[in-house]
Amino acid sequence: MRNFRLTAAAALLTALIAGPSWSYTPGTYEASAQGMKGPVKVAVTFSKDAVTSVKVTEEKETAGIGTTAAAELPRQIVEAQSTKIDGLSGATVTSKAIFAAVEDCIRQAKGDPNQPARSTAPKHAGKTIEAAEDVVIIGSGFSGLAAAVNAAEHGARVTVLEKMSVTGGASAICGGQWAIMGTKLQKKKGVPYDPPQALVYDLIGNGHLKNDLTTLTMFAENSPRAADWAINRFKPEFIDQKLQYRAEFQFDRSLYLKGGCGPAYRKVEKAVRDLGIKIHTDTKAERLIVKDGRIVGVEAHKKDGTKYIFSSKAVLLATGGYGANKAMLIEPLKSALYYGPASATGDGHRMAQAVGAKLELMEFGKRYPNGVEAAPGVAKSIIQGNYRAWLQSGILVNNEGRRLINEKASNHDILTVLEKQKDGMLYLVMDQATWNGFRDGVHTLGITDEDLEKWLAENGRKAPIFAHGSTLAEAAAAAGIDGGTLEKTVARYNELVKLGKDEDFGRPAAFMKAAISSEGPYYIVEQKPRFATTMGSVIVDENLQVLNQEGKPIPGLYAAGEIVNAVHGDDSSPGMNVAWGFTSGKVASESILKALGQLEK
Amino acid sequence: MRNFRLTAAAALLTALIAGPSWSYTPGTYEASAQGMKGPVKVAVTFSKDAVTSVKVTEEKETAGIGTTAAAELPRQIVEAQSTKIDGLSGATVTSKAIFAAVEDCIRQAKGDPNQPARSTAPKHAGKTIEAAEDVVIIGSGFSGLAAAVNAAEHGARVTVLEKMSVTGGASAICGGQWAIMGTKLQKKKGVPYDPPQALVYDLIGNGHLKNDLTTLTMFAENSPRAADWAINRFKPEFIDQKLQYRAEFQFDRSLYLKGGCGPAYRKVEKAVRDLGIKIHTDTKAERLIVKDGRIVGVEAHKKDGTKYIFSSKAVLLATGGYGANKAMLIEPLKSALYYGPASATGDGHRMAQAVGAKLELMEFGKRYPNGVEAAPGVAKSIIQGNYRAWLQSGILVNNEGRRLINEKASNHDILTVLEKQKDGMLYLVMDQATWNGFRDGVHTLGITDEDLEKWLAENGRKAPIFAHGSTLAEAAAAAGIDGGTLEKTVARYNELVKLGKDEDFGRPAAFMKAAISSEGPYYIVEQKPRFATTMGSVIVDENLQVLNQEGKPIPGLYAAGEIVNAVHGDDSSPGMNVAWGFTSGKVASESILKALGQLEK
Ligand SMILES: Cc1cc2nc3c(=O)[nH]c(=O)nc-3n(C[C@H](O)[C@H](O)[C@H](O)COP(=O)(O)OP(=O)(O)OC[C@H]3O[C@@H](n4cnc5c(N)ncnc54)[C@H](O)[C@@H]3O)c2cc1C
Ligand SMILES: Cc1cc2nc3c(=O)[nH]c(=O)nc-3n(C[C@H](O)[C@H](O)[C@H](O)COP(=O)(O)OP(=O)(O)OC[C@H]3O[C@@H](n4cnc5c(N)ncnc54)[C@H](O)[C@@H]3O)c2cc1C
Repeated sequence: MRNFRLTAAAALLTALIAGPSWSYTPGTYEASAQGMKGPVKVAVTFSKDAVTSVKVTEEKETAGIGTTAAAELPRQIVEAQSTKIDGLSGATVTSKAIFAAVEDCIRQAKGDPNQPARSTAPKHAGKTIEAAEDVVIIGSGFSGLAAAVNAAEHGARVTVLEKMSVTGGASAICGGQWAIMGTKLQKKKGVPYDPPQALVYDLIGNGHLKNDLTTLTMFAENSPRAADWAINRFKPEFIDQKLQYRAEFQFDRSLYLKGGCGPAYRKVEKAVRDLGIKIHTDTKAERLIVKDGRIVGVEAHKKDGTKYIFSSKAVLLATGGYGANKAMLIEPLKSALYYGPASATGDGHRMAQAVGAKLELMEFGKRYPNGVEAAPGVAKSIIQGNYRAWLQSGILVNNEGRRLINEKASNHDILTVLEKQKDGMLYLVMDQATWNGFRDGVHTLGITDEDLEKWLAENGRKAPIFAHGSTLAEAAAAAGIDGGTLEKTVARYNELVKLGKDEDFGRPAAFMKAAISSEGPYYIVEQKPRFATTMGSVIVDENLQVLNQEGKPIPGLYAAGEIVNAVHGDDSSPGMNVAWGFTSGKVASESILKALGQLEK
Repeated sequence: MRNFRLTAAAALLTALIAGPSWSYTPGTYEASAQGMKGPVKVAVTFSKDAVTSVKVTEEKETAGIGTTAAAELPRQIVEAQSTKIDGLSGATVTSKAIFAAVEDCIRQAKGDPNQPARSTAPKHAGKTIEAAEDVVIIGSGFSGLAAAVNAAEHGARVTVLEKMSVTGGASAICGGQWAIMGTKLQKKKGVPYDPPQALVYDLIGNGHLKNDLTTLTMFAENSPRAADWAINRFKPEFIDQKLQYRAEFQFDRSLYLKGGCGPAYRKVEKAVRDLGIKIHTDTKAERLIVKDGRIVGVEAHKKDGTKYIFSSKAVLLATGGYGANKAMLIEPLKSALYYGPASATGDGHRMAQAVGAKLELMEFGKRYPNGVEAAPGVAKSIIQGNYRAWLQSGILVNNEGRRLINEKASNHDILTVLEKQKDGMLYLVMDQATWNGFRDGVHTLGITDEDLEKWLAENGRKAPIFAHGSTLAEAAAAAGIDGGTLEKTVARYNELVKLGKDEDFGRPAAFMKAAISSEGPYYIVEQKPRFATTMGSVIVDENLQVLNQEGKPIPGLYAAGEIVNAVHGDDSSPGMNVAWGFTSGKVASESILKALGQLEK
C-alpha cells in the first residue's frame, strides 16, 4: 500500500564505518541509577571484546515515555557497543539513568565507559526519499492518531510523521482526565441529559468569551459520537468510579483513564500499527509544500539525515502546543513555568503561518498556581502535595507572611491572588505532619525523595524554594518571608481552627481540623504559575480546514488537537483537551475523507 | 420587471353587479365611536342617493394597524356605498369603530345603515395569474421585508405575499425593544465590548439549553453587521436614552424604538415600496410547489378569488409564529392567553412540513405572568399597570389569599409560582390609590376606561376578573378569594412596610414605601399567563435553508424570523426577536443571492 521510491542517486547507499576495538572482563554485571520515578536497574553481559546484552531488570518509569526508553535503548547500546548515543527525546531522565547504570557495569567489567559509539544505523545523509500518500498526518498524539485510524479504515492511504523518537507528545503523558459529555458511557454512569448547548455554555463561561465559536459548536455537536467511537474503537480503561463533579460544568462529565493517558495512548498507537500505518519517528516535518495555492505535501527531515518529500492530497497538522518554545510565548505565559512535553514547540503553528494561516489567542495557556521551578523555566506540579497539605494544616501566605485566600479556592482564584504579589509567587507553610502528607502527595507526580533532599539542601538559596527551619522565624528567614508577620498569621489561623470557622477567608471547616503545630521543624515551599497546554490556535472552519488571513480555507490543509485549542477560549476546562483531541481528530479525518470522495465507502 | 400573465380563460373577466338604490338627506354628518385607544370620529357627506365622502377626523389608533384602517376604510365604504364590507384583518377594533360611526351618520341622514355592499373590486373568481420571480417572500414582517430590500438591492426580482389587508404582522405592533449587541450604535452608547460569545452564552442561559446551536452561532456572528445595516438603511428612530440593563444579559443592549415598532416598520415598508417591490396584500400563500425535490414556487389565493401561481428560484418563509392557531398549540402554551396578532397561524410551519421539513420546540413560547382574559382565550397585557402597582402598595396573592413571592421578581419566577396554583392564576390586590396608578399604566397598553368599566361591572362573575368591594372581605368574595386569610396577609404586609424590609419574600425596600390603606374600596385583578411570540421552528442550516427530516437542505426553501425562533431556546430574551428578524432576513437574502449567483454583483 505504501509507495516509497528512493531517489536514484541515493538508492541503497549505506555506510558502515569500522570502529575502534573493545576489551572487557567477560560476565554479567548489575548496576542501578535514579530514573524519573525511582531506581532503574540494568544487567549487562560482556564477552571479552563486546557488550553482548543489556537488560533493564527493574524500572518504575512513566508508561509510554520512560518505558519506551527502557525497551528501546538496550538494543541501541548493543548495536553501538557504547552509551555515547542519543537518548530518546522525550525521555531524557530515563535515558540518562540507563546510560549511567550501563557505564557502571562497563567499569565493573574493566571496559572504557567513554568509548565512542560504533556507527550503527545506515546513514542516509544527503539522500532524499519521495513518497505519495492520500493523507500525511504530522504528529502522533491523540488527535493525529484518531484521524489516522479513521481515515485508514475508510480506505485512505495514511502516513504519520513524529519528530521525537518517542510517540505521543502530550497525549502519552497527560493526567488522564477525560470529559465524556453526551456519551453512552455518561448515560450508563447515571447522567442521561447533557446536551451540546450545555457544553457551549460551560466552555464560554470558562473560556471568558474568547472561544472560537465555529469549532465550539462543532465540538459540542460532535463530541458525543466521537467519544463513543473512540471508547468503542480503542477500549481505553477507565478508573471504575462515578463521574466527578467539576465546578466548571453543570453536569458531571469527568472520568479518569487508568494509569493516566499513557496506557490508553498505547492502545490507540497499537490500533494504528495494526492497520499497517507507518509512524515515522525521529522525522520532523519542516515545511508544507504549496502548489497553485494548494497544500500538496510535506517536506520532512529524519534524524539520520534523510530528507522526505511526501506528496499528498491532504495534510493534517496535529502537532500539539508551543509551550516548550519560549520564542513563541507572550505574557503572562512567558513568565509561567512550563511542565509539558519538550515536543510542544509550535511547529504546526509556524508551518501554517508560513503558508498564510492566521493565528489567534497566542497569549493564553492553561495555567495553574502550583508549580515549583525544578529547573530554570521548567515546572513540576505539586498539586497533589497541596491537596494533602489542605487536609492537614498547610496554609498559603505571601512574602509578607500574610494569608490572603481560602486555600481551597479554585485554581483560577488563587492564580489571581498570586499574580498580584510583587515576587510573583505564594508560599505554602507546613509543620512536620503536614510536610509528611505533602511529600507523599508529590511522589505521585514523579517528584522523588532525592529531588526533595536536593531542594531542601539548598534551603531557599536558589529555586525551587524548599526552605525549612526548627522555628517559624528560621524557616521564614530562609524563604525570604517576613517572620514576625508569619508568626502572627499562624497564631490567627490556629485561632480560626479552634473557632471551627475561617472568618477571614472562608476555608471550608472540613479542611480546618488540624492546628499548625507549635513545634518545629517547619517547611516553606514556593508556589509559582505553571502551564503545559497552550490555547493559541490556527483558525479553522467547521471542517477543521485551516483558514488564511482573509478567512478563506487553504485547500488541502487541516488541523486538529491542541493546535486548534481556541475552541476552549482563554483556558481549557478539566478533561476537555483529551475530548477535543479525539473529536477534532475524528472530524478532521471525516472532512478529509469527504474531500477525497471517500467518506461514503 | 414583473411578469404577469393572465390565464387565457379568465383574462379580463370582471363582473360589476348592479346594486339596490340608496336615499339620504344630503349634507355632512359627524359621529364618533370607541376605537382601540380612544374615540374615532368621522365626518360623512351624502348626496340624495349616495355616500360621497367619508373622512376620519380624529383617532389615536396604533400606528400601522388602526391608522391603516383609518386611511383605507373610508375609500372602501364610499366604493361599496355601505359599511357591510370586510374590516381590515389585524385591525378589527378600529374597523368596527369606523363602521359604527359611519352607520350613526347614515342614520342621521335618514338612510338605511343595513344596506348591503355594492360589489366593488373586480371579481377574479376562477381566474389564475402566473408570475415568475427570482424570490418569493411569504410574509411582510421585519424578516421578510429586510430580505426583500437586500435581495432587490442586489438585483434579484422579488415579490412579497401578505395574507392580511394590513402589512407587518407582529413586526408592525411590537413593543419596540431592540437588542443591539455588537453594533456601532452600542459602542456609541458606551458599551464597546460585547462579543458574539457573550450572546451565545446569554441566550443559552435564557433558552434553558434548548437553543438551536447552528442558528445561534450564526445569529451571534452576524447580528452586529445586520443591525448596523438595518439601522443605517432604514434609519429607525430610537428613544434617546442610555442602553438599558436587563438581568438576562451580561452587557447592556436594550434600546427602544420611538413609538414602538410601528413607525420603524413603516420606514422599512416604505423602503420596499420605493424599490418597486410589490407587496401583494390579502394574498395568502397556500402551498409550496415542488418539482424534482426542489421548491420552484408558491400557490397563493387572493381574497377576491384570484389564484396566483408564482414560479421562483427561491422561496423565503417569513410567516411569523403560530400563537393564534389553537390547533398548533401544545401545553403549556395551549392554556396561556394569546395577545399577539391574528396573522400568526403557523402557515409557514405547515407549508414547510408538507414538503418534508422537520419542526422543533413547538411546545414553547415567550410567556408572561401578567395577562387578563379580555375575550375568551385572548389576553391583554397589564404589565405596565402592575409596574405602577408595585410603586405603591399592590400585592400578589393566590386564591387562598396568601402572598407567595416578591412582586418585583422576574417574570420567569412569578410564572413558576403562578403555575403551581390550582386555578392557574394569581391576583393583584389594590387599594384606591394603587388602582389609580394601575389604571394609568394599563391605558398605555390600549386598555380604555370603557374596558375597565365593563370588566368592573361584571365584578368577578366572568373573565376577566376585576373584582371590587368597599371592604377587603367584599372584594375577596367577589374575586373568589379567601377573605379571612387575605385580611391577615394585608396586615402582615403593612407590618413589613413599617419594618422597611420584606422579611417574607424580599420585595425591595424601594417598592415598599406605601402601606395598603385601611379604607376601601379595594380592587382585585386576575393575573394569567399570556404569550404572543412562539418558539417552535422549522430547522435550518447556517444559510437558513430549511432542512428535511433527514437533516438535508430542501433545495430552494429558506426561512427567517419568528418561524426560526428555536435560535432563542425555550424563551426569547428582551429585544431579541426584532434583532433576529433583521439578522435572519439579511442572512437569508444573502444565502439566496449566493445561490442565485448574484451576491458579488
Ligand atoms: C502533563 C500534562 C497533563 C495533562 N493532563 C490532561 C488531562 O488530564 N486531561 C486533558 O484533557 N488534557 C490534559 N493535558 C492536555 C492534553 O494532553 C493535550 O492537550 C492533548 O493530549 C494534545 O493532543 P495533540 O494530539 O493535539 O498533541 P500531542 O499529544 O502533543 O501530539 C503532538 C505530536 O506532534 C509532534 N510534532 C510536533 N511538531 C512536529 C513536526 N514538526 N514534525 C513531526 N511531528 C511533530 C509532537 O512531537 C507530538 O508527539 C495534559 C497535558 C500535559 C502536558
Ligand atoms: C405585542 C407584541 C409585542 C412585541 N414586542 C417585542 C419587542 O419589544 N421586542 C422584540 O424583539 N420582539 C417583540 N415582539 C416579537 C416580535 O415582534 C416578532 O417576533 C417579530 O416581529 C416577528 O417578525 P417576523 O417577520 O418573523 O413575523 P411577523 O412580523 O409576524 O410577520 C409575518 C407576516 O407573515 C404573514 N403571513 C403569515 N402566513 C402567511 C401566508 N400563508 N401567506 C402570506 N402571508 C402570511 C403574516 O400575516 C404577517 O404579516 C412582540 C410581539 C408582539 C405580538
